[in-house]
Amino acid sequence: MTGNTHVVIVGGGFGGINVARTLLRHGGSRIRVTLIDRRNHHLFQPLLYQVATAGLSPADIATPIRAIFRGDPRIRVRLATATDVDLASRILTTDGGDVPYDHLVLACGATHAYFGHEEWEDRAPGLKTIEQATEIRRRVLTAFERAEFESDREERRRLLTFVIVGGGPTGVELAGALGELSRYTLTRDFRNIDPSSTRVILVEGGPRILPTFAPELSHKAARSLEKLGVTLWTETQVTQIDERHVHAGDEIVEAATVLWAAGVKASSLGEKLGVELDRAGRVRVAPDLSLPDHPEVFVIGDQARVELDGRPVPGIAPAAIQQGRHVAKNILHDLRDSPREVFEYHDHGIMATIGRATAVLQRGTLRLNGLVAWLIWGFIHILYLIGFRNRLLVFIQWTWSYFRHGRGARIITEPDWRLHGVHSPASTGRRHAPDDPGDPRKERS
Amino acid sequence: MTGNTHVVIVGGGFGGINVARTLLRHGGSRIRVTLIDRRNHHLFQPLLYQVATAGLSPADIATPIRAIFRGDPRIRVRLATATDVDLASRILTTDGGDVPYDHLVLACGATHAYFGHEEWEDRAPGLKTIEQATEIRRRVLTAFERAEFESDREERRRLLTFVIVGGGPTGVELAGALGELSRYTLTRDFRNIDPSSTRVILVEGGPRILPTFAPELSHKAARSLEKLGVTLWTETQVTQIDERHVHAGDEIVEAATVLWAAGVKASSLGEKLGVELDRAGRVRVAPDLSLPDHPEVFVIGDQARVELDGRPVPGIAPAAIQQGRHVAKNILHDLRDSPREVFEYHDHGIMATIGRATAVLQRGTLRLNGLVAWLIWGFIHILYLIGFRNRLLVFIQWTWSYFRHGRGARIITEPDWRLHGVHSPASTGRRHAPDDPGDPRKERS
Repeated sequence: MTGNTHVVIVGGGFGGINVARTLLRHGGSRIRVTLIDRRNHHLFQPLLYQVATAGLSPADIATPIRAIFRGDPRIRVRLATATDVDLASRILTTDGGDVPYDHLVLACGATHAYFGHEEWEDRAPGLKTIEQATEIRRRVLTAFERAEFESDREERRRLLTFVIVGGGPTGVELAGALGELSRYTLTRDFRNIDPSSTRVILVEGGPRILPTFAPELSHKAARSLEKLGVTLWTETQVTQIDERHVHAGDEIVEAATVLWAAGVKASSLGEKLGVELDRAGRVRVAPDLSLPDHPEVFVIGDQARVELDGRPVPGIAPAAIQQGRHVAKNILHDLRDSPREVFEYHDHGIMATIGRATAVLQRGTLRLNGLVAWLIWGFIHILYLIGFRNRLLVFIQWTWSYFRHGRGARIITEPDWRLHGVHSPASTGRRHAPDDPGDPRKERS
Repeated sequence: MTGNTHVVIVGGGFGGINVARTLLRHGGSRIRVTLIDRRNHHLFQPLLYQVATAGLSPADIATPIRAIFRGDPRIRVRLATATDVDLASRILTTDGGDVPYDHLVLACGATHAYFGHEEWEDRAPGLKTIEQATEIRRRVLTAFERAEFESDREERRRLLTFVIVGGGPTGVELAGALGELSRYTLTRDFRNIDPSSTRVILVEGGPRILPTFAPELSHKAARSLEKLGVTLWTETQVTQIDERHVHAGDEIVEAATVLWAAGVKASSLGEKLGVELDRAGRVRVAPDLSLPDHPEVFVIGDQARVELDGRPVPGIAPAAIQQGRHVAKNILHDLRDSPREVFEYHDHGIMATIGRATAVLQRGTLRLNGLVAWLIWGFIHILYLIGFRNRLLVFIQWTWSYFRHGRGARIITEPDWRLHGVHSPASTGRRHAPDDPGDPRKERS
């Protein structure tokens, strides 16, 4: 290992960004960094559910990766997709060409998993990207628009039924926001339907929602959700999702909108490493977060399985941030030929928000819920948003929503930009009329 | 005509919104309104170019139509596409069913026209909808991303060449914003390319840009654009646009990004009325803005050709607003069996902005340009934005951009929401790597 290194980072999420930041802050002139991502923006995923439910705009929670590192000549940001890794010759293959590395950090994250039912994705999108968030927003708002002028009672009921699969934080936050939206935001918008008659059903396979939280907080969260009109089905497995129905336990629900928040699998780039993966496709890493037998390669964040005294580190932003900083430190140790450090996870706690003004928060033995937890939740999320501009814009919109029950981003955008000129009514016809919001394919071509 | 009326308005733009507002304000209980639009939002089109150039987010300039009229039981907002009008039996046909009317107001607006070259649309999108704006944003930002890692000098030059067809306000504002973006915003973002080497070419068929302005202001605007590095080609006709080139006059330019701002045609719904249309497909209306022989049907805004002492009323927001209010007044006159009034256009002037801190403004004999004009421009546009929230958000982002040369909404979003999970690199491969930004179809599967 020379005194200089070219560090190639794949992924501009919480993990990758923090590897680069720490390296640049402490690495001086011995560091050269290439950060590769398929997207041009860092996405603040913890708030993505608010884009899906029309509370925030995409740009409020997305920052161009270039802008984060602007002006530093030691780092190159590259828009490309990593496709393979040649560990022997230390080359990362991307669709934009090969990139040789001295150190490689894989921080590619995870996507939602359908446990062998990938065919459900069109019907039940997950929530990992801005496009998925605006698609969910389109489906939800379109369902209300269609219900407004639907004469058939059964069909109206189907349109106003929203099923969310998965009772983890994402599912709970989506359900809370949908309850909020239908109970307060949309009530005065519609004439023929009473949006509060909306059914929001949260389906969880386990005995309680928010299983990673203390039971008392799970129950507090459940009660808060029920106050917002959300129906909870625990210990219920989803066995089938078809064009109109969701089969959950013994129930068969007619639902126009189904959202998937039931588990993730790691980026498949890990499969190219020829090492052991866990059931979720995560790479099992050494205590210093490197690959067994390949100390120059690190895997972090949702793509890595890190076990501390037998318990895996949770797949949340603070863990990815800590791992990113730790990897950067170990790379700097390498440059000084000093020994690496073992990763230790500092648990700052976990939180989830429910609707407009309540949340659950747990840190060590501390348990909080209600408005106080919600204020702390909001403060911390604004604090961690990258960029003063984003913080200010999000803060203003939250204040606005809090007092006005408003959700400013209630606009329906369509997948295809070509369809929206005023060409002939014929050519713009059905596409503009909400078709089955459950199947956007019908709105294509 | 009874003392009550059901007014059906097609189009939620400046014209349609103001018909409804005025009717509801002064019509009391004798008024029932149905407002029909293909989209669920009112779009503040004068600022759409800022979404296309990453200055603002879609939701900043779009307001849900329902939200504008929330709480008033006399109006129904309906998401549907009007497909035909049966003047004899007074029924509007939509893809969501038939809607009978007592008064009908068509305010469907206009779309960009390619003068018989509709095949150019994919290569040279116009700017009328949010989807078109985000598509243009994607192409522009993707072109810079690709140029950053393009080794071939010629190809890099092609990627950094932006051709804008049409020297009216939209073309000038797009060109100014692109010059701004490449000269200031992106300069520190990129390493391998010098964004200020970007070529922005504004092609105008006539002898000068902004032909509706006084010659002196056209020249002031031209000089301001040249300061931002924009090349002006006046008296130049675009004869051909192919995959790589734009044929303009004797020149053949290689350009990855081509934008169309060269004229509009009215909504084709006018063709269903069996009345005389002008070359731009606009309906020639009577002095009271109604259809000849059909006093119960009005056509306003970009869809109407209104001539006052031989000169057509310009297709700008203030004209549409005035026409909307006037139509509402005449409908109320009908209810009182009092005679209708002839429409008079009050010319409050015209403006166009160039880049970050200059604009041209003309009102009667008044001519303004530079910072003062720009401040007035900004003030008036914020004033006319619907909703305090939008005003505040836009104001903050403009202040931010002004002092930081920042453009916050610099995110690339893709047309298809399905492509962006972290599935397999194989499946996400080329799609994420910017393909030819000039042809988004290549990015579809």
